[in-house]
Amino acid sequence: MQEYAFPMHKHPASSLPVGVLGASGYSGRELCALVARYPAMTLAFASANGQRGERARVAGREITFVAPEDAALERAALVFSALPHGESAPWVERAQSAGAKVVDLSADLRPGNGASRVPYGLTELARTEIVGADVVANPGCYPTVTLLALLPLLVRRLIAPGASVTVNAASGVTGAGFTPRRDLLFAEVAEDFRPYAIGNMHRHLAEMQAVVRGLGSDNDLIFTPHLLPVARGILATITVPLAAPLADVLAPWREQYANEPFIEVTTDVPTLRDVVHRNVVRITAVPAANVRHPTLIVIAAIDNLVKGAAGQAVQNANLLLGLDEPLGLPA
Amino acid sequence: MQEYAFPMHKHPASSLPVGVLGASGYSGRELCALVARYPAMTLAFASANGQRGERARVAGREITFVAPEDAALERAALVFSALPHGESAPWVERAQSAGAKVVDLSADLRPGNGASRVPYGLTELARTEIVGADVVANPGCYPTVTLLALLPLLVRRLIAPGASVTVNAASGVTGAGFTPRRDLLFAEVAEDFRPYAIGNMHRHLAEMQAVVRGLGSDNDLIFTPHLLPVARGILATITVPLAAPLADVLAPWREQYANEPFIEVTTDVPTLRDVVHRNVVRITAVPAANVRHPTLIVIAAIDNLVKGAAGQAVQNANLLLGLDEPLGLPA
Amino acid sequence: MQEYAFPMHKHPASSLPVGVLGASGYSGRELCALVARYPAMTLAFASANGQRGERARVAGREITFVAPEDAALERAALVFSALPHGESAPWVERAQSAGAKVVDLSADLRPGNGASRVPYGLTELARTEIVGADVVANPGCYPTVTLLALLPLLVRRLIAPGASVTVNAASGVTGAGFTPRRDLLFAEVAEDFRPYAIGNMHRHLAEMQAVVRGLGSDNDLIFTPHLLPVARGILATITVPLAAPLADVLAPWREQYANEPFIEVTTDVPTLRDVVHRNVVRITAVPAANVRHPTLIVIAAIDNLVKGAAGQAVQNANLLLGLDEPLGLPA
Amino acid sequence: MQEYAFPMHKHPASSLPVGVLGASGYSGRELCALVARYPAMTLAFASANGQRGERARVAGREITFVAPEDAALERAALVFSALPHGESAPWVERAQSAGAKVVDLSADLRPGNGASRVPYGLTELARTEIVGADVVANPGCYPTVTLLALLPLLVRRLIAPGASVTVNAASGVTGAGFTPRRDLLFAEVAEDFRPYAIGNMHRHLAEMQAVVRGLGSDNDLIFTPHLLPVARGILATITVPLAAPLADVLAPWREQYANEPFIEVTTDVPTLRDVVHRNVVRITAVPAANVRHPTLIVIAAIDNLVKGAAGQAVQNANLLLGLDEPLGLPA
Repeated sequence: MQEYAFPMHKHPASSLPVGVLGASGYSGRELCALVARYPAMTLAFASANGQRGERARVAGREITFVAPEDAALERAALVFSALPHGESAPWVERAQSAGAKVVDLSADLRPGNGASRVPYGLTELARTEIVGADVVANPGCYPTVTLLALLPLLVRRLIAPGASVTVNAASGVTGAGFTPRRDLLFAEVAEDFRPYAIGNMHRHLAEMQAVVRGLGSDNDLIFTPHLLPVARGILATITVPLAAPLADVLAPWREQYANEPFIEVTTDVPTLRDVVHRNVVRITAVPAANVRHPTLIVIAAIDNLVKGAAGQAVQNANLLLGLDEPLGLPA
Repeated sequence: MQEYAFPMHKHPASSLPVGVLGASGYSGRELCALVARYPAMTLAFASANGQRGERARVAGREITFVAPEDAALERAALVFSALPHGESAPWVERAQSAGAKVVDLSADLRPGNGASRVPYGLTELARTEIVGADVVANPGCYPTVTLLALLPLLVRRLIAPGASVTVNAASGVTGAGFTPRRDLLFAEVAEDFRPYAIGNMHRHLAEMQAVVRGLGSDNDLIFTPHLLPVARGILATITVPLAAPLADVLAPWREQYANEPFIEVTTDVPTLRDVVHRNVVRITAVPAANVRHPTLIVIAAIDNLVKGAAGQAVQNANLLLGLDEPLGLPA
Repeated sequence: MQEYAFPMHKHPASSLPVGVLGASGYSGRELCALVARYPAMTLAFASANGQRGERARVAGREITFVAPEDAALERAALVFSALPHGESAPWVERAQSAGAKVVDLSADLRPGNGASRVPYGLTELARTEIVGADVVANPGCYPTVTLLALLPLLVRRLIAPGASVTVNAASGVTGAGFTPRRDLLFAEVAEDFRPYAIGNMHRHLAEMQAVVRGLGSDNDLIFTPHLLPVARGILATITVPLAAPLADVLAPWREQYANEPFIEVTTDVPTLRDVVHRNVVRITAVPAANVRHPTLIVIAAIDNLVKGAAGQAVQNANLLLGLDEPLGLPA
Repeated sequence: MQEYAFPMHKHPASSLPVGVLGASGYSGRELCALVARYPAMTLAFASANGQRGERARVAGREITFVAPEDAALERAALVFSALPHGESAPWVERAQSAGAKVVDLSADLRPGNGASRVPYGLTELARTEIVGADVVANPGCYPTVTLLALLPLLVRRLIAPGASVTVNAASGVTGAGFTPRRDLLFAEVAEDFRPYAIGNMHRHLAEMQAVVRGLGSDNDLIFTPHLLPVARGILATITVPLAAPLADVLAPWREQYANEPFIEVTTDVPTLRDVVHRNVVRITAVPAANVRHPTLIVIAAIDNLVKGAAGQAVQNANLLLGLDEPLGLPA
């Protein structure tokens, strides 16, 4: 990654038309809002099957949702698909056939989910593959924060071989989607805190584990997600058994991410407030005192809707379209 | 523990006078409220150094705080000390000299904190020692939930020898006390989630680790606490490497706590809502799928002010005074 | 009201069977929880059309919802109907035909809603009519807090004739029901505050206005409700133009409610915290300074699910069944 | 106001140095953040008496607080004073003597607070006086939302003469300041809603009433503020007795504010979510149904820290410095 040189800022002469499929959910709206504020992109359409014909205000502008069948795919230079898992893949094909590049925010084409042949859009890991691709599988929010936190340790083989890595993560409720559900009503979520998918049962574990394996690691992840009474943000607390104590604890992240515009390695403790509404990951690491086995506590935080979804999708779209990667993104 | 037979309900003919030192904090107020609703106890005094002379409404009644020096220790059958850590020990002695039994909610006399010679008030662990004692060191809130969750595994030697146990816990802000602090203002805590004492630095880790060692275990705890945007409650998510897979995952807890009135072993996922305002621990355990090393995820939840402080203190006070253990407690 | 003498406590020899129709909503669950904790009542059935066969935990016990058609109306001494507005009236008749007394929590039989011939269950206003009745129309939550706040002024003719009374009220989201709705999701409600039914359009205004008229007042109410980011509670801020300044501002409430167990007239400012989980109204009044026309600001607070719904329903049920009015209620 | 023609955008060749006195509170920090993002201004200093020498991160940059005595007033083209009420006036003089223009966010120089000789910085009311002034008294947050909501009615004499206008407003807790206070701790504010200064006792009522009088109105305001469990935002619900019914209810606002960049007259109901982090007021009005006296319900919402404080201060600073009024402001 370090060898990648950022391209010169290419301010496009004109604005490129992009479309959003599945625009009525939280990620879809965040995408529309980012596009609305980004001079290099123009929103060509926003589809929402269940809300076709309805209007929504996004970033101060009104948009009208169309049915996906009525989306002018052929007019778009790039299509973002924020369709549900399982429904997205056929629309990715349609959009490609219509001549558009595609960033797919669903899990359909991600690793760990059958044989995927498209680059995994964890930009800081796979930038060189993404540049020049036609389709990118945008990572899930939990995989984004977990993998970016672990990447410097994985590529440097610093984790104790064969050891399990414990990932506890807590997410705001926008991560659970905009579909009305009783258990997500305000009066149910406020003043509560709930673990779920206990026992390593989260559907995106396979995605994380596949990337870990792809980096040559034999470490198992033990992942427990929690629902927080906040709207946005994910914080991951990761306990990592080390192969050996580290002399300079933050050095792996500082080296790995030296030139990354969206990764903040810090000696402060990352919290949700530091990252909401920003396309960044904040990461710190501290060695555990009072233990025999050398162990690191790694803390990482993102906005699940920005760096964990729509922001990272725009970051990838910039690469697909030959635009400067950081353009249009709140850092 | 299993051999302990609950005493017959001894409804006292008259109400016993008890006092609360350090009554103006969250734990102190909760104690006053429990005492106010408990016919077998009468509040003899409530001290609060900084708020002497001030009045507060507790459980619908008005109390007036006195200076600790003006507290009628000699009139109390039992004194609860909710004084700050470091200030409590001398008052425990004074109250004993005045003839009162004492439940000390501070850390001063707890294990891991110098040579303690008083029973540790984790009732479900040390009930037989508490009955007949004069002073009890009431456990901290994090140690209560962590140790009650781990106890059945520890006493049965089910944890992989030498392995580290990862304890991630999240607490409501009453756990941080009632002293005005900028970082605890509503506008700072809402919509945030913060780890703290990262790197195994929490001051109550020694208490937990000492009890673990006292039970003959060589396992290290790796403990990371977090501040939740809720008022009350602690949820602990504990990842435990097992010596061997368990045939019946919940059996250790079901056996250990078969006759415990305040421990709920459940197949549901414990959440804060289930336990707030109640003197209970709710616990479940699930084996981790997709990992080589057999591992359990144990989830436990308490109300930090009730089972984690004032409720457990009343539970211990009942034993010290020869009252029926569950009396006066919301289960 | 003052002439009403509380009956002697009649502790029933045995527990009376009661049923709850529409038990799966917030009010229905609160009713089930109150009944579960009340020795004088036993839950005979709990119906929930959409969730028939499902189980729920209420006050620590498990209940199984039945279809309303399968509810054993004939076995119940009293039936609470928490069915939706418009669906309740026929079930009230069925329950009566089956021999049960009925407390109807819907708006179907309330004043202002067509010709009602059953007593209005604002207990502190209509106690003598309720005792001896077969059916009671339990008031809405907004009417409860508004009318109990205004009653002492209305019956004493203290409000400026012909003047408008401004009622601003803010309610926790349980007031909006347990049906899944996008606008009630946590991420939509948190950090927001929304007026609704602006322009005197709230459907329960007619109920309030009819009672005001029934008391001989020509004052118009101007009512604006708001949605608060809290789970429970209603606070009403009422601005009342007076016929003349009052010498003793709180005297009307103190006289009117001298013997009422569930009304707290206070010099403190009522807030939600003072009333949640309690069957009380807290009320204060302060004259407005710096104005020509004498004006009172009246503040009143209730728990919308207790005094504003299930608690008041049990209060009325006690009267219908000849039980002591305050039994079974958290004050 | 309508006659005012917006000046051409004057993009300054270089960035002007500005200072912030009292920079450590919520308004002060918001000012620093706005300045940090605004190319036409550069932060020359940020003073904070109690936190001198401490560092803070604002809009991604680190600033170090100096003592006010060490603030380089003479280097600043303009000074914002966010010092506490009562402490600000002498510093306004010092800054003026040093040659700086001043926007004073305290109440010291506002109307209703003794004889003020500086323009009142309610920009949409007093723009022509502000242009060309040396000092401006920036309005309080409650006066801003209340007066901008009422202005079109006041200047058109549409309110019933002599009538009282009822203003109920609810504010997020940042409005109460950043000083640590027990009653503002998270666990005290969450799940509560509290009126305060009941009886027309709020200290900024005089400011509002003085402006109302200055516009030739004899109407009394009856103002009741409330504390909301949210971080930011004020919503005002204003009940206005009209001299006569209005044919076109929103016409007064639409006319008055036709060219205003920061006022949104809407048929939607304004809520806090629509305005937070933006320098806007959103306003609607609806006639009250079912009342004899013609009455309007006016709803207005602002972000108390932006349009109610720091944003409006930058708006005024732009006018004082000859910059284009909307520059640097999030709309």
